[in-house]
Amino acid sequence: MPHFLATTDAGFEAAFTALLGMKREDSPDVDSAVAAIIADVRARGDAAVIDLTARFDRLALTPETLAFSPDEIAAEVAKVGPEDRAALELAAARIRAYHERQLPENALWQDASGATLGWRWTPVSAAGLYVPGGLASYPSSVLMNAIPAKVAGVERLAIACPTPGGVVNPLVLLAAQIAGVDVIYRIGGAQAIAALAYGTESIAPVDKITGPGNAFVAAAKRRVFGKVGIDMIAGPSEILVIADADNDPDWIALDLLSQAEHDESAQSILVTPDAAFADAVVAAVEKRLKTLERRAIAGASWRDFGAVILTRDLAEAARLSNRVAPEHLELCVADPEALAEQITHAGAIFLGGWTPEAIGDYVGGPNHVLPTARSARFSSGLSVLDFLKRTTLAKMTPEAMAAIGPAAERLAISESLEAHGLSVRARLARLNGGQIE
Amino acid sequence: MPHFLATTDAGFEAAFTALLGMKREDSPDVDSAVAAIIADVRARGDAAVIDLTARFDRLALTPETLAFSPDEIAAEVAKVGPEDRAALELAAARIRAYHERQLPENALWQDASGATLGWRWTPVSAAGLYVPGGLASYPSSVLMNAIPAKVAGVERLAIACPTPGGVVNPLVLLAAQIAGVDVIYRIGGAQAIAALAYGTESIAPVDKITGPGNAFVAAAKRRVFGKVGIDMIAGPSEILVIADADNDPDWIALDLLSQAEHDESAQSILVTPDAAFADAVVAAVEKRLKTLERRAIAGASWRDFGAVILTRDLAEAARLSNRVAPEHLELCVADPEALAEQITHAGAIFLGGWTPEAIGDYVGGPNHVLPTARSARFSSGLSVLDFLKRTTLAKMTPEAMAAIGPAAERLAISESLEAHGLSVRARLARLNGGQIE
Repeated sequence: MPHFLATTDAGFEAAFTALLGMKREDSPDVDSAVAAIIADVRARGDAAVIDLTARFDRLALTPETLAFSPDEIAAEVAKVGPEDRAALELAAARIRAYHERQLPENALWQDASGATLGWRWTPVSAAGLYVPGGLASYPSSVLMNAIPAKVAGVERLAIACPTPGGVVNPLVLLAAQIAGVDVIYRIGGAQAIAALAYGTESIAPVDKITGPGNAFVAAAKRRVFGKVGIDMIAGPSEILVIADADNDPDWIALDLLSQAEHDESAQSILVTPDAAFADAVVAAVEKRLKTLERRAIAGASWRDFGAVILTRDLAEAARLSNRVAPEHLELCVADPEALAEQITHAGAIFLGGWTPEAIGDYVGGPNHVLPTARSARFSSGLSVLDFLKRTTLAKMTPEAMAAIGPAAERLAISESLEAHGLSVRARLARLNGGQIE
Repeated sequence: MPHFLATTDAGFEAAFTALLGMKREDSPDVDSAVAAIIADVRARGDAAVIDLTARFDRLALTPETLAFSPDEIAAEVAKVGPEDRAALELAAARIRAYHERQLPENALWQDASGATLGWRWTPVSAAGLYVPGGLASYPSSVLMNAIPAKVAGVERLAIACPTPGGVVNPLVLLAAQIAGVDVIYRIGGAQAIAALAYGTESIAPVDKITGPGNAFVAAAKRRVFGKVGIDMIAGPSEILVIADADNDPDWIALDLLSQAEHDESAQSILVTPDAAFADAVVAAVEKRLKTLERRAIAGASWRDFGAVILTRDLAEAARLSNRVAPEHLELCVADPEALAEQITHAGAIFLGGWTPEAIGDYVGGPNHVLPTARSARFSSGLSVLDFLKRTTLAKMTPEAMAAIGPAAERLAISESLEAHGLSVRARLARLNGGQIE
C-alpha cells in the first residue's frame, strides 16, 4: 500500500516533509574505481578502452571496430519492421518540430550612450551522447538527446552505447540514424565517458556529454565536468497527478504505474480533493498490479514510494505540487490551463485527462529528459539551449567611452585594480588630446 | 618574458598545444574538510555556522547577528561617497537594461494533430549569492550576480559575505542595496554554502547558489550541487587580444595587464600578424610593469602564462582563438564585426580598440561572470536564464490522441514498458467506444 496523507490530518506537515525528504536512491560509491578508469583511458587511450570493454562487456574490440561501420549499422537497421520505423520517424519529426522552436535569437542594439551591445548564440562543436546498453537501452532517449543537439547545429555527434556480449538493439541504431548521429561507439561505462571527454587515438574528444547511465557513468560525468560540459545527473523517475473525481480511475492508475514500472525507486503521487476517487484509483492500481508484466518493479515502487494525498481543494493541491517540484505533472481536472497558472515548479506539465505522461515520453514533442529529485526548483529539461552557448558583444565609440568610461575607472580604483582603470583612462586621455604616463 | 610563438615555426603546433594544456591552477584538496563542515552545519545548524565563523573569521556572532540589520547596512552605506555611489548606480542601470533584454518568451501553439504544445518560464524562488571577503570583495560582482536574479524574478535573494575580523566593504553593501538583495549574512566559506543549501534555524535554504569563492567555497558548491543548482566553478581569468598594427601598443599592454593583475594564475595572450607591433606591445608591458601597483602579481602572470603569438593573418588568429575559447576576447582590428563572424567560441567579445575589457567588468552592461579555462566551448556567461527554468506544456485532444497515440503505444511496447502502452491504449479504446481489460 502506498503512503496515505490528508492535509486535514494533524500530522500532515510532518508526514509530507518526510515524503519530500525520502531518500529513494542509494548510489554505490564507485568514485575511486571511476577515477582509476579515467586515469587509465587518459594514459593508454584505445588500449585501455579495449581492455575495459573486454572485461566489463565480454566483447573483443580493436581500434578499427570501436565504432560500428556503416555496413553493420545498415544490417542491424534492416531488421526493424516498418511499423516500428514509422513510429520512430513520427516521433523524430514531432520532437524536431518542437525543438526547432527553441532556437534563440541573436541580438544587437545601440543604446543611448552610443555603445553597441548584444549577444550571439553558437553551437557546441562536438557532443557525445551516452546510451545505456541492455534493458534500459531506449531508442526514444536517443531521439530526445540527439535531435536537440542536431537542431542546435552540433557538427559532430557521437554515441557511446555498450553492447554487452555483442548484443545490439537495432532500434537504437535506427533512432541514431534518423536523428543524424555521426558515429556510434560500442563502448560503455566510465571508460566511454573518459574516451569522449579526453579522446583516444581512435575517438575524437567532444565538448559536451549528455544522456543517462548507471552509477559508474554518473560518477564519471561528475569527474569530467569542467573538462567538458555535462547535462544533469538523472535520478529515478517521478510523476505527480492532480486529479478531480471526473476521471476514469483506471486511466489515472495506469499513468501512476507507467512511472512505477520504470524502477523500484520511481515515485508516483496522486493528489486529489476526492476521497472516494482516491480509493477507486488505489483499487485500480491494485487490479492492474495483478497482471502487469513489470508488476514486481511497479509494485515495489508503489508500495515503498507511492503516495495518495487528499487535499481540501485543487489550489491546495497545486501548492503541495510546487513543494514537490515533480519531474512530470499531470493536471487531470476540468480547467487544467487555470490550474497550470498556479504551478511554479515542474519539469513538464500534461494538461487534461487526454494527455497521459507516456505521450510525452515518445511522441508529444517536448523533451523527456527532465529534472528529477525536486531539481525542477532550479533546472529545466534538456533543450536546444543545452547545445548552444552565448557570446556577449560590446562595442564602445569614443562618445560612449566619454559617457561611461569615468564610472568604470572610478569602480576599478575602488576595487584596487589599477591596470583596469588605466586601460580606460588611456582611452579617455586620447579624447582630450593627451596621453597618460 | 611571456611565451613567444609563431605559426610559421616548425614547432608551433606542439608549442601551442602545450600552451592550451598548461595547468594554471593547483587547487588544494580540501574536499574532506569541506565534507565535515557541511555535515556539521546540517547537524547543528546555527551553532555550527557560529562556531566556524568564530574559528575562521575571528568573529563572534549570535543567531540574531548572522545577518546585517537594516540599521547596520544604512550606517555602512552612508560611508560611501557620492562619486562611488553614482558610478555603482550607473553600472547597475546599464547591467539591468542589458539583462532585461534576456528575459525569454513563453510559447504556446497548436500543431496539425490538434495537440497544444509550448513552454513557460518561471523564476527560481530563492537564490544565494556568495561574495568573497577581504581583497577580492568586489561590489561589481555583487551587481553582476544579483541583478540577473532580480530581473528573472527571484523573490528572495540572499548574500553570504564573510567579514574577517568584522571588516566590511561598504561598497559591497551598497551594491547589494542597489541591486535589491533581501538579506546579507556575514558568513563565508564552506559553512556559508552549506547554510544556504540546507538552511539552519536562522537561515532559510535557497534553490540556487552563484558567485565566486576560494577552494573551500568551490568544493562546497560541487558537493551541494543537486540539492541546489550552482553556477560554474570559476577558474583564473583570461584575455586574448587579436590586434593589428594600427593600435596604440600602450592601450593593448594595459588591456593585457588588466587581466594579469587579477591573479598570478591569470593568462593574457596577444595574437597579431605584425611582429613589430608585437615587440612594441611587449616593450609597453615591460614599461608599465615597472610602476603598476600590482606589478608583482601582474608580472608573475605575464612571465609564467602570458603569450605572444604571431600569425600569418587575422583569419589564422581567429582560428587559434577558437581553439583557446577565451573568457574575454578583444578584437582590436579595422573591421572587428567581420572578424567576430569567424569566432565560434568566446565568453565575451569586445569589438574595436575603443572597447577595453575593463569596460565590460563594470559598466558595459553584459555580465562579467564568464566561462574560464576553455569552457566557452560549451558554456555561457551568467545570465537571466540561470535564474529561470522552463516547464514544458502538452495537451492532447481526442483527435490528437487518435493521430499520434498508436505510435506512442508502439514505441512503449518496443521498450517493454507495458503500463506506458496501456495508459495510451486506454484512451484510444475510449475513442472506439470500448474499454480495455
